[in-house]
Amino acid sequence: MISWKNLDTLSSFSKLNALKNRVNLPEVMAGENGAGRVARYAAPMAQGMQYNYAAKQVDDEILSALAELAKEAQLIEKYRALYNGEVINTGEKRLVLHQLCRGQQGDAVVADGVDKRAFYVSQQEKAAEFANRVHRGEITNAKGEPFTTVVQIGIGGSDLGPRAMYLALENWARQNGCFKMEAKFISNVDPDDAASVLKGIDVSRALFVLVSKSGTTLETLTNESFVKNALKNAGLDASKHMLAVTSETSPLAKSSDYLAAFFMDDYIGGRYSSSSCVGGVVLSLAFGPEVFARFLNGAAEEDALAGNPDIRRNPDLLDALIGVYERNVQGYPATAVLPYSQALSRFPAHLQQLDMESNGKSVNRFGEPVNYVTGPVIFGEPGTNGQHSFYQLLHQGTDIVPLQFVGFRRNQAGMDVEIQGSTSQQKLCANVAAQIMAFACGKYDENPNKNFEGGRPSSIIIGDELTPEALGALLAHFENKVMFQGFIWNVNSFDQEGVQLGKVLAKRVLAHETDGALKAYSDLLDI
Amino acid sequence: MISWKNLDTLSSFSKLNALKNRVNLPEVMAGENGAGRVARYAAPMAQGMQYNYAAKQVDDEILSALAELAKEAQLIEKYRALYNGEVINTGEKRLVLHQLCRGQQGDAVVADGVDKRAFYVSQQEKAAEFANRVHRGEITNAKGEPFTTVVQIGIGGSDLGPRAMYLALENWARQNGCFKMEAKFISNVDPDDAASVLKGIDVSRALFVLVSKSGTTLETLTNESFVKNALKNAGLDASKHMLAVTSETSPLAKSSDYLAAFFMDDYIGGRYSSSSCVGGVVLSLAFGPEVFARFLNGAAEEDALAGNPDIRRNPDLLDALIGVYERNVQGYPATAVLPYSQALSRFPAHLQQLDMESNGKSVNRFGEPVNYVTGPVIFGEPGTNGQHSFYQLLHQGTDIVPLQFVGFRRNQAGMDVEIQGSTSQQKLCANVAAQIMAFACGKYDENPNKNFEGGRPSSIIIGDELTPEALGALLAHFENKVMFQGFIWNVNSFDQEGVQLGKVLAKRVLAHETDGALKAYSDLLDI
Repeated sequence: MISWKNLDTLSSFSKLNALKNRVNLPEVMAGENGAGRVARYAAPMAQGMQYNYAAKQVDDEILSALAELAKEAQLIEKYRALYNGEVINTGEKRLVLHQLCRGQQGDAVVADGVDKRAFYVSQQEKAAEFANRVHRGEITNAKGEPFTTVVQIGIGGSDLGPRAMYLALENWARQNGCFKMEAKFISNVDPDDAASVLKGIDVSRALFVLVSKSGTTLETLTNESFVKNALKNAGLDASKHMLAVTSETSPLAKSSDYLAAFFMDDYIGGRYSSSSCVGGVVLSLAFGPEVFARFLNGAAEEDALAGNPDIRRNPDLLDALIGVYERNVQGYPATAVLPYSQALSRFPAHLQQLDMESNGKSVNRFGEPVNYVTGPVIFGEPGTNGQHSFYQLLHQGTDIVPLQFVGFRRNQAGMDVEIQGSTSQQKLCANVAAQIMAFACGKYDENPNKNFEGGRPSSIIIGDELTPEALGALLAHFENKVMFQGFIWNVNSFDQEGVQLGKVLAKRVLAHETDGALKAYSDLLDI
Repeated sequence: MISWKNLDTLSSFSKLNALKNRVNLPEVMAGENGAGRVARYAAPMAQGMQYNYAAKQVDDEILSALAELAKEAQLIEKYRALYNGEVINTGEKRLVLHQLCRGQQGDAVVADGVDKRAFYVSQQEKAAEFANRVHRGEITNAKGEPFTTVVQIGIGGSDLGPRAMYLALENWARQNGCFKMEAKFISNVDPDDAASVLKGIDVSRALFVLVSKSGTTLETLTNESFVKNALKNAGLDASKHMLAVTSETSPLAKSSDYLAAFFMDDYIGGRYSSSSCVGGVVLSLAFGPEVFARFLNGAAEEDALAGNPDIRRNPDLLDALIGVYERNVQGYPATAVLPYSQALSRFPAHLQQLDMESNGKSVNRFGEPVNYVTGPVIFGEPGTNGQHSFYQLLHQGTDIVPLQFVGFRRNQAGMDVEIQGSTSQQKLCANVAAQIMAFACGKYDENPNKNFEGGRPSSIIIGDELTPEALGALLAHFENKVMFQGFIWNVNSFDQEGVQLGKVLAKRVLAHETDGALKAYSDLLDI
């Protein structure tokens, strides 16, 4: 029997609290002891990757307490309940099934009279078939010319994830002979966004993928109008250039405005939808359906690891637990995600949404205020770029910011250059190794301005190369981490009531139904 | 006589501390009182813009205390000392002269036997003349074809600022007939970065601008080699495609490897160098030197406002003071920058560097540890995108994150579409107005999951349109804000000793001179 309890009611949490500031990183990471930690504090991930947490402020005793917490909070049982189709999103009374897009872990999940795995697979097959027909030149523009560009129109979860995934695999696909179509993304209601994208493409050769689960997202419908205008002005029939990704019950589902429609449903939250047709249509068009399938396989492999009750063999769970120790025991307010891979340039922005929208909550799943902090601020940029930017604060600022590095042994494009005795790739990897140690151990200098205190915790995920499978595993790792943290904090990670009020007030402004300060701001902005 | 004192030694700071949690935002922002605040709590900025702080947790008494703090900390005197050429960067014993690139505010600054304003102007003129010759077709590739693309190779301050400025003005330039050349940027030592940029351009028609003050930045030199290889492989003479922006004493300055060299000096820090040739060469090539000159004029206009001792008429100073109240009195650890303008998509990343690298320090300018927190974590994405991403945490998370909005009445590209009775631009502006009020006042709901407590402070900078002048003013505003905060915290905002240790350790890894954990990590990464 699963019971949902607040973190501060768990006895393992009291135990954990007593272990505050227990680990002195400069001390434990020094010398051979440090090397031993690097070897021992590593949890295997999918695709031969590893989550290495040697430079986190943990030791065997803290890990035991975290294991106890995992058990007391029934984290694995809750995970099983989720993938077996319980109503985990209690606020909206919904199942949480994004993982079912990439594999069947538990029992068949039947909802609304449908086997959900079969439904998701059918939509993937439909997207694959459609993409193959486009690539074979069976679906073309009115002149019979092939489509060369796919433009995703979506915002939030319909944008950040798919965009980050596209950028992550673009170089890889070019290098591996599976680059089919260039992808672009329009998201912002700022008309300059769409204008800018349209200026850079040949609209007569473009397919537009309109993504909105409800079919009512204001930004997306506005940008659809913008694009339809542009198609019309170019003398084109918009309905021959537009696809819809939506739910079966949305107004877009059966409309003749679209060349084809692909479906997800209410059991896949926007920020968890990269594995569904929200990511699948654009990525299958860009790189071919086989690449998207490989991405899903990597994710499924990681999902399977997340079911292991042994926290040391469960990288997703362990990352979540250590994050809670850092947030609720050590008291750190933010976390930085720092991939040493230019291909992951927008991955932190996606994780920022995933994490902050899921766990930025002040009430538990029963609507009661919690007495502890929940989701931290998440930010990040790729390394080595960040080293020349905000790392100063990370090294010498007054607050400690836990870090999450990602690094790969090989680059994607297969082009490199050797100068000063090493390749670019070696320099990249040397930098991330160096940073971990600089943050952990610091270095004494008698000039306090040049002194590094160290004691700044980090982990690193290491893989061979950012392949489609590795990307899927990486995405699943963070999705699962966020899920486990939501379980620990006892919040509903799958709703987002905090975005509603702004929408309501914006409508009021547009209807000129305002007074007081809201009217004053509206006047200032000439609305 | 200026005296540099720690914040916690100032009597005005004690007074300010006594004013913690004084302002109840939902209360003061309600009804006509709120409208009154919007009218009254607005400081004029350059170019007819305004800094509106009605929704910040301040009132007349707090503003008085902040004015006292400004006076006691001698902020205006310190600013004057800076632009008159005192050694403000004491750690590195350097003047701080980036403002001199855009105007002469005080006495002539003579250093190293040179009038510095004249020197910076001469470099601008050289860049302008060079750009004009490229645009007139007088400088071409070996075949006599015009150059169509400019690629900046730089990292950190040589990348983030110029890149953000380019993106900010690209649409504007296209719309206003001054788009001359497309610009691209290579920064990361990850070879996939350069590979990706080179795949997207015709190298035979590209000019590359190598930017490194010292001429020794590892990433930049590595990417130079990468690009030179590519030029060589294309049968091109690299020296006819490469420009250098560097200091006169660097190894790049007089090298025949470059078609031309443009100079800055040690008195312009990387993150403050957008106004120098670091931004000037690439932006003059992209948009023409007149556009860059207009950008500088806007910045100079804002710099002039920053000298006003009346804090209510000095938006840069006021923003700094309110930020310190939020950080050191209210105790907020992070700040989000949220421009409602897609053109400013990378502006937050630039400010992240500007702010965190400048003020992420734990020792004062004399090298003594400070007993208070300094620079916060800075992050942000453009609105309305962020609304569908991390705003959930900002509205309902357990920590309060102060917000800095930016909005413009008009878009840049001049293309728009009306649906549901309003244009995209109106929707964009309605959203930012709505967000300010949603954050400030919240809204009670008996369902705690849908309840908004409010009390989340924000400010907004409002302008007519993001023109070159407005962009210059915006940049100067934040540069000056960061400068004033550095003065208040008594830190040196112009050095970055925190980036050194990582470089040293990375070299050691590449030389295979490691042991312990560093060797273990290096082995894991196959270095």
